[in-house]
Amino acid sequence: MTATTGHTHPTDPDAAGAAGPIGYSLPLSPSGQASMLTPPPWHFSGEILMVDYRVDPDAARRFLPPGLDAGADPGAAAAVFATWQWCSEDGAELADPAVCRFSEFLILLGCAFEGRPMARCPFAWVDQPVPMVRGWVQGMPKQFGAIHQTRPVTVGRAGSRLAPGGRFDGALSVHGRLTAEASVTVERRSERPPALHDVPLAHSLVLPRWVPSDAPPRPRLVASEVSGVEFSPVWSGPGRLALSGRPGTDLALLAPVEVGAGHVFAYGETLHGGRLLGA
Amino acid sequence: MTATTGHTHPTDPDAAGAAGPIGYSLPLSPSGQASMLTPPPWHFSGEILMVDYRVDPDAARRFLPPGLDAGADPGAAAAVFATWQWCSEDGAELADPAVCRFSEFLILLGCAFEGRPMARCPFAWVDQPVPMVRGWVQGMPKQFGAIHQTRPVTVGRAGSRLAPGGRFDGALSVHGRLTAEASVTVERRSERPPALHDVPLAHSLVLPRWVPSDAPPRPRLVASEVSGVEFSPVWSGPGRLALSGRPGTDLALLAPVEVGAGHVFAYGETLHGGRLLGA
Amino acid sequence: MTATTGHTHPTDPDAAGAAGPIGYSLPLSPSGQASMLTPPPWHFSGEILMVDYRVDPDAARRFLPPGLDAGADPGAAAAVFATWQWCSEDGAELADPAVCRFSEFLILLGCAFEGRPMARCPFAWVDQPVPMVRGWVQGMPKQFGAIHQTRPVTVGRAGSRLAPGGRFDGALSVHGRLTAEASVTVERRSERPPALHDVPLAHSLVLPRWVPSDAPPRPRLVASEVSGVEFSPVWSGPGRLALSGRPGTDLALLAPVEVGAGHVFAYGETLHGGRLLGA
Amino acid sequence: MTATTGHTHPTDPDAAGAAGPIGYSLPLSPSGQASMLTPPPWHFSGEILMVDYRVDPDAARRFLPPGLDAGADPGAAAAVFATWQWCSEDGAELADPAVCRFSEFLILLGCAFEGRPMARCPFAWVDQPVPMVRGWVQGMPKQFGAIHQTRPVTVGRAGSRLAPGGRFDGALSVHGRLTAEASVTVERRSERPPALHDVPLAHSLVLPRWVPSDAPPRPRLVASEVSGVEFSPVWSGPGRLALSGRPGTDLALLAPVEVGAGHVFAYGETLHGGRLLGA
Repeated sequence: MTATTGHTHPTDPDAAGAAGPIGYSLPLSPSGQASMLTPPPWHFSGEILMVDYRVDPDAARRFLPPGLDAGADPGAAAAVFATWQWCSEDGAELADPAVCRFSEFLILLGCAFEGRPMARCPFAWVDQPVPMVRGWVQGMPKQFGAIHQTRPVTVGRAGSRLAPGGRFDGALSVHGRLTAEASVTVERRSERPPALHDVPLAHSLVLPRWVPSDAPPRPRLVASEVSGVEFSPVWSGPGRLALSGRPGTDLALLAPVEVGAGHVFAYGETLHGGRLLGA
Repeated sequence: MTATTGHTHPTDPDAAGAAGPIGYSLPLSPSGQASMLTPPPWHFSGEILMVDYRVDPDAARRFLPPGLDAGADPGAAAAVFATWQWCSEDGAELADPAVCRFSEFLILLGCAFEGRPMARCPFAWVDQPVPMVRGWVQGMPKQFGAIHQTRPVTVGRAGSRLAPGGRFDGALSVHGRLTAEASVTVERRSERPPALHDVPLAHSLVLPRWVPSDAPPRPRLVASEVSGVEFSPVWSGPGRLALSGRPGTDLALLAPVEVGAGHVFAYGETLHGGRLLGA
Repeated sequence: MTATTGHTHPTDPDAAGAAGPIGYSLPLSPSGQASMLTPPPWHFSGEILMVDYRVDPDAARRFLPPGLDAGADPGAAAAVFATWQWCSEDGAELADPAVCRFSEFLILLGCAFEGRPMARCPFAWVDQPVPMVRGWVQGMPKQFGAIHQTRPVTVGRAGSRLAPGGRFDGALSVHGRLTAEASVTVERRSERPPALHDVPLAHSLVLPRWVPSDAPPRPRLVASEVSGVEFSPVWSGPGRLALSGRPGTDLALLAPVEVGAGHVFAYGETLHGGRLLGA
Repeated sequence: MTATTGHTHPTDPDAAGAAGPIGYSLPLSPSGQASMLTPPPWHFSGEILMVDYRVDPDAARRFLPPGLDAGADPGAAAAVFATWQWCSEDGAELADPAVCRFSEFLILLGCAFEGRPMARCPFAWVDQPVPMVRGWVQGMPKQFGAIHQTRPVTVGRAGSRLAPGGRFDGALSVHGRLTAEASVTVERRSERPPALHDVPLAHSLVLPRWVPSDAPPRPRLVASEVSGVEFSPVWSGPGRLALSGRPGTDLALLAPVEVGAGHVFAYGETLHGGRLLGA
C-alpha cells in the first residue's frame, strides 16, 4: 500500500501496528482485499450504439462548469449505449462474468477547454454497482438504470447483421420509467470515429460535504487519462432518439432539437486516472 | 384467430358476440394483443459457451422418461450457457431490446428415441419471463436464474479474442446461490458442431393438474421442430465445470464425473412447434 | 407420488423401473424434488393496497369469457397491489426469504357466474418466477413486472402510520415502462372488506397448443378454491389510480373512467385448487 | 444553494452567469434538481432482524481505525438485516415507492472512542443505488447485494406472528453468491434495545484519490449525527448466523465464534450529517 498507487494508507505510517484497516476504497480491511474498487488502470472493451444529436446551445452551456466553453460546435450532443467488459490490470475479474460486465447509457455534450475539443457527460447510467461508484470517484455522474441494447448477429434470424440495412436499438429505464430510446439503421462504413467519442471527457470532481464544519465542496475540473484507445470499423446510418426524463429533473433540457447519424462500433480503452484542468 | 395458428378461439365460434376474449396465450383479451406469448415460429440467434462432460450413466437414465433410452453413449452430458436474441415471425420484438434478449443455462443428456440420437434437457434456467413460460408451453423445464457469460472482444484488453488461448466463462445463480460455473479456454477450430447441440431435444409436455376431478396429468414425449439451424465456426479447447445445486433437489445427481472439451460458437434456429414421439 | 395429490405419475405404474422421472411440475426428476412448484395447498399472507374504480362496462364485458356476465354492477373494477409471503403446507419456504416473498399487481373486474358474484382478473403481474408459473397452472394470467408499495410504519418519520391521513402508494413497471400507479389516503376504518376482494376469482384454464395435431385449446372456466380467508381491519379513504399500458396491448381498454375509494389491509388465505364452473 | 446546506456552489460566486451547474451531489445541472442525492436530513423507518454474535477479538481490532479501540467488550458483534423506508425532509420520496424503499445487511463491531461506546460497520450491503452512494458520502462502506427478510404477519398462515415461537429469517447474496443467513426465533420482549443498535456509528470518511498529484487520502473518523431515535418493542430469542464471504475478501475474519440472541423490532431515526471525532 503506497502513495504511488493512491491507496489509503495509515494516518501514522510509523506506527504500523496501529495503522488500522486499509484499501484502495471502502470497505477498508486488514489486508485491503475487501476494497469494493480496485485501483486503476482499468481496461474496457465495449460494444457501442451512438446517436449524434443537437440540443439547444443555451441549454448545453448551462450544463458546462466554469473553465469549459461550448467550443466550435455549440449544441453538438450524443447519446451513447454501451455494453462493456472491464477488468483491472491483472485481468482477474474476467473469470467472474457476474462482475466484469455492465451496460451504460450516457449523454455527451461537445465543449472545449482552452480551445481543445472535449466532451462533457452531464448524465450517465449503469447497471452494476462497481462502475457506478467508480464513476463518482472520477467525477462522472453515474446513476443506476436498466439498460438494454440489441447486438449484431452472425447466424440465425433474430437480429441484424452488421451490414447495410442492419438496425440496432437501445433503451434505458430509470426507477421503472422509460427514459431513453435510440435506434440506428446502419448504411455504410464511416471513415473516422464519431467526433464526440474521440475526445477526452472533462468531469467535475466533487463529493457532497458531510461534516458541516468543512469548507463547502468546490468541484474541480478533471480530464480522464486514457490510453490504448481502439476503434473497430464504425458502421453509420440514420439515427433515432427519444429522451423523457422524470419531471423536475433537468434531463428534459437536453432533449433533441435535431437527430443526426447513428453509429455502431466496438471500442477499447484503458483508464488511468484524472488530470486537473487549469490547475 | 384460427385453428391453424393454434390460437385460443371462442368456445362457440358461431356466437361471435359472446365469444369472449382471445389470445395465443394468457392474458386473453378482446383483440388477442394482450397475450404474453406470440405464436411460433420464433427465431433465435445466440452466443453459446458449452462444456461437454460425463455423468453417472445410471443417474442419467433416471432422468429419462419412458420412450427414451441412454443411446450409444450413456452418461454423455453437456452444460450450455447461451445469450440469445429472439423474435417472432415479424421480427417486431427486435425493436424492443428490453424484451428480445435473454440468457440461459441448461444441461443436456445424450439419449435416443427408437435409435435416433436426441438430447434431453433435465434442467434449464433463463433470466426473462417470456422465455420461461414459453419453455413450459413446449415441455422444457425452464426456471429463473441470474446468468452471466463473458464474450469475445475485438478491441481493447477487457476480454479474450476468439483465438487460441482465449478464455470464456459462464456463471448461474439461482435464488442467490451460485449453482453452476463453467469455463472454456479455446485452442482450435472444431470440424463439426458439438454432438449434443446438434440433435433434436425431447421434452415432456405436462402441466400440473389443477382441477382435482381431472385425470392425472400424463407427460407426453415431444420433439421440438426446428428449422434454419446455423452454426458459426466452433472454437474448442479444455473445459471446466462445477455444479452445486441446492440440497434436496436432484441437480447433484448430474454432477460431473469427468469434464471434457468446451466450445464457443454462435447458433441460430427457428422453433416451430412440437411433434409427438411414438404417437 | 399419488393421483390424490395431482402429481405427475408414471405412464405405466406397473413398470416401476421404467417409470421415469416424476414431480408435481417440471422439472421432473428421479425423486420429484426438482419440481419448480410444490403441490397445493399454498398459504398466503399479504399486505394489500387496493383502489376501487370503474371502467367502461362494454370494455369490461369484452374481457369476460362465455359463462360469466357483468353481474349486478357492470363496470366495477379494482386495482390491487399486494406484498405476499407464501408457503406450502409444511411451511418450509418460510426459512428461505429469497423464495417466500413476492409482490403482485392485478386488476379485478366485477362479474357473476349463474348469478353468483365473482371477480375476473384480466391482468396480473408478479416479481418472482414461482408465483408466475403457478398463476398459469391455475389459469391466472400472471406476467412479470417490477412492483413497489409503501407500507405503514410504526416508528420514525419515513412513512405514514395506519391512521387517518396516512398515505400509501403502489407502482408497477413492465419491461421498464411505468404501467400503473395507485395511491390511497386512509381516513376511516371500513365496516366490511372491499367487495371485489371478497368474492371468488374465475379464471380461464388454458395453455397454448404445442403439437399442431392436437385439438385447439378450449379455455375452461374455473373458480379458485380457497379457505382460511382472514382480513385485518380495513382502512379506507380516497384513492388515485393511473394505468398506462404499452400501446397495442388491451390494458388501455380498462383505464379508469372514475376512481373511487382505496383500501389498505392485510389478507390471508389458503389456495387448494380449482373447480370447474358450469361443468 | 448556500454553504449552509452543504450544496456545491459556484467556484466564482460573483460571476453568477458563469457559475455553472449546481447540485447537492452529482449530476450537477442548471437547477440542481438532477442531483442523485438530496441533502440531509434523511428520515428512516425500518424493520430490523438482528443477531448478536462474537468474533475473534484480535480480528475485530484489525478492522478498527486509529482512534477507535475495542472498548469494554472486545469481540462483540452483530449482524443486522433491515428493510427501510426513507425520505428527505419534505417527504417527497414517499410518493414514489420504487425509490423510497431498500433493504440492507450490515455487520457491527463493538468499539469505543475516548471511552464512549460506539459501533463500527466494517461491511454493509444495500439493494438500491441511492442509499449505496449516500453510504460513501458518510464514510459507510455500502456495497450492493440482494437482501431478503421475512416479516411478521397478522393474518393467514404464511409467516410467523410477532409472538413467542415466531421465526424470522434474513439472507444476503452478493454477485450471486450466498453470503449471509440469519434466523431469530423470538421468545420474549426485551427490556432494552440491542446494545450495538443503540450507540453511534463511527465511520471513516475517505474516497480514493483520482488525481495522482493530490496528497494520498487520509481517512477521517466521523460519527453519524442522528436524532429522533425510536424503537418499537423488541422481541428477542435464540439467533442463528452463517457468513460465507467470497474467498480473498476479509469478511471471513469476522465469522462467528459464538452466536447469541436475536432481535426483531422496528426502528426510526433521522440522519443529519457527520461530526469529526478527535478533531
